Amino acid sequence: MSAEQKLLSLGLTLPPPPIEAGNYTSMKAFSEGKLVYVSGTGAEGVCDFVGRLGETLSLAQGYEAARGCMLNILSAFKAKYGSLDRIRSFVKLLVFVSGEREFYRQPEVANGASDLLVAVFGEEIGHPARSAVGVYALPDNIPVEIECIIEIN
Amino acid sequence: MSAEQKLLSLGLTLPPPPIEAGNYTSMKAFSEGKLVYVSGTGAEGVCDFVGRLGETLSLAQGYEAARGCMLNILSAFKAKYGSLDRIRSFVKLLVFVSGEREFYRQPEVANGASDLLVAVFGEEIGHPARSAVGVYALPDNIPVEIECIIEIN
Amino acid sequence: MSAEQKLLSLGLTLPPPPIEAGNYTSMKAFSEGKLVYVSGTGAEGVCDFVGRLGETLSLAQGYEAARGCMLNILSAFKAKYGSLDRIRSFVKLLVFVSGEREFYRQPEVANGASDLLVAVFGEEIGHPARSAVGVYALPDNIPVEIECIIEIN
Repeated sequence: MSAEQKLLSLGLTLPPPPIEAGNYTSMKAFSEGKLVYVSGTGAEGVCDFVGRLGETLSLAQGYEAARGCMLNILSAFKAKYGSLDRIRSFVKLLVFVSGEREFYRQPEVANGASDLLVAVFGEEIGHPARSAVGVYALPDNIPVEIECIIEIN
Repeated sequence: MSAEQKLLSLGLTLPPPPIEAGNYTSMKAFSEGKLVYVSGTGAEGVCDFVGRLGETLSLAQGYEAARGCMLNILSAFKAKYGSLDRIRSFVKLLVFVSGEREFYRQPEVANGASDLLVAVFGEEIGHPARSAVGVYALPDNIPVEIECIIEIN
Repeated sequence: MSAEQKLLSLGLTLPPPPIEAGNYTSMKAFSEGKLVYVSGTGAEGVCDFVGRLGETLSLAQGYEAARGCMLNILSAFKAKYGSLDRIRSFVKLLVFVSGEREFYRQPEVANGASDLLVAVFGEEIGHPARSAVGVYALPDNIPVEIECIIEIN
């Protein structure tokens, strides 16, 4: 089953690709086109939560936002490279979580992104290295922003 | 026009290369010398603002600080590799912004760095992937710190 | 002297490899197996400090925690790749430090990690590019989390 068929079977569809919020590109290829650096991406258009985890937003909403970030990344990838099946591996995710001072469950938020990757792409392709940290503020007061590195065929 | 001529034509000059603030190197080559990881770099020596965006510093000062970080990175690159013309591509910028709790305009700050890159190197080389996040505190209370990956010829 | 002999000569031993705290892998190889992305790793099992630098924890404890993160990373590397002698170079460290608002000495904390690398592996292999930033909160309220890229033979 292709990655896009798998997404559909999970009841998920790709949103329109997100719009860059400044003078940068959503993804930049390097290493002779074998690697792609993906810009920090929010969940806008998928779930438009604003606010912070532990304040106005629940852990479940943070999980959903992390999944939304990843859906936006997949959409941007498809728009640029034509098909999700060109993805060879997710190398790493860096997950920035905006929460209140005593919110310490960043990894559970980040699972919203990596659970999706493993469900759609399987363990070998979809299981990334990952860091999850609590930041002080994110652009437009979104709760989660994710950057990643993708290896491509 | 070379990158350095272009800098001059914009009225900009390279500062002296910044000094490492600990036991690390300002740039480390990897992947058979084709990629360079650039350490988190502030704007010291270019603009010596301290403080936080939205508190004691304005958005315009943040933009200027981000440009200053990038001038320091270019200076360190030239000191190590001899010429800016060895730069093949800016792969990614990670822009850490120290601001007050309700400061949500990190991407506009980060444009100070990427606007400079596009002006000096053009779209293909100078347009990076990018993340911009609000952190709680930066070394010596500087407002902006930037790390990046550069691809070289 | 091998890296592990060097560790012993410094009076240090590798802890058991840390356990992943979510749906990710502690290290992911890429670029034809020549590079390894290491997930954000804390010092748990080496020194189990919780809290923030400048609040309940001292700079010396932060330094020790950063060294503990790196011991955990070395342990995870050995568990996956068999020997520390496969390490060709530490490319970069990204050091997240949880501190109070006026804690600005993140680079001194991060030296706990890079001092260890230089002591064990020498300058050429052990001297990384590095960023050190103050974040708002880390998982389980740990004071330091480190991610890195390692080049392997």
